[in-house]
Amino acid sequence: MTIPPVGSHCILELYGCDPTLLNDEAFVRQALTDASREGMSTLLNLTSHAFEPQGVTALGLLAESHISIHTWPETGYAAVDVFTCGQTAQPELACALLRRRFNAAEHALRRLPRGRQAPTPQQEGVLCQAQN
Amino acid sequence: MTIPPVGSHCILELYGCDPTLLNDEAFVRQALTDASREGMSTLLNLTSHAFEPQGVTALGLLAESHISIHTWPETGYAAVDVFTCGQTAQPELACALLRRRFNAAEHALRRLPRGRQAPTPQQEGVLCQAQN
Repeated sequence: MTIPPVGSHCILELYGCDPTLLNDEAFVRQALTDASREGMSTLLNLTSHAFEPQGVTALGLLAESHISIHTWPETGYAAVDVFTCGQTAQPELACALLRRRFNAAEHALRRLPRGRQAPTPQQEGVLCQAQN
Repeated sequence: MTIPPVGSHCILELYGCDPTLLNDEAFVRQALTDASREGMSTLLNLTSHAFEPQGVTALGLLAESHISIHTWPETGYAAVDVFTCGQTAQPELACALLRRRFNAAEHALRRLPRGRQAPTPQQEGVLCQAQN
């Protein structure tokens, strides 16, 4: 069975971000909204939650799939993923905006094709070694 | 700069699923709710959207991060990701429930540690080859 790729899943690590910005739920929501637009995608729904004592999660439901961010102000770290299907969206542009918006000192980006092909047994449970 | 891992991001491809189930928004929402519980995580918010002519997206905001599914009934394919932080959640159990619930004929699972370390320039833009 072969299935064409449906899109790209960008996994972005942001390090050395501004802790105040990472803990500002309204700022995080606006950043995700702007990143969706920057990535040429359509934001259909945005939900968020501010954790105690700190940290924010925001999830954007896109016409093209989803965008998410989870923040750890205490370490200046944010975990982002942007999954877009189709040929129009540019998830790397969304990632670049978030890097700038949170003043990330360092970052790492992986782009994973999704739905490209049926898996083989050897592929099941494979750990991506790209970051580790 | 070194940052300890904050959690695991499971990227799950489901192939050969039941198209009727993949296109049933209520079923997809219940599956994600049950998968969150199965994975020992806490679902704080669940949003979904049914696309025309077909396809469903559902996003769950977890106390531990997020769970998502995007379905393509026309090819029997679903793209899932389950990102959980902390030591309690078991994202593979959530993935296993979704494989069973949608009667997936084949699947592929990648587990990506998140926030493990600061990136090197060589790691930026790395394409995970595990599936391709």
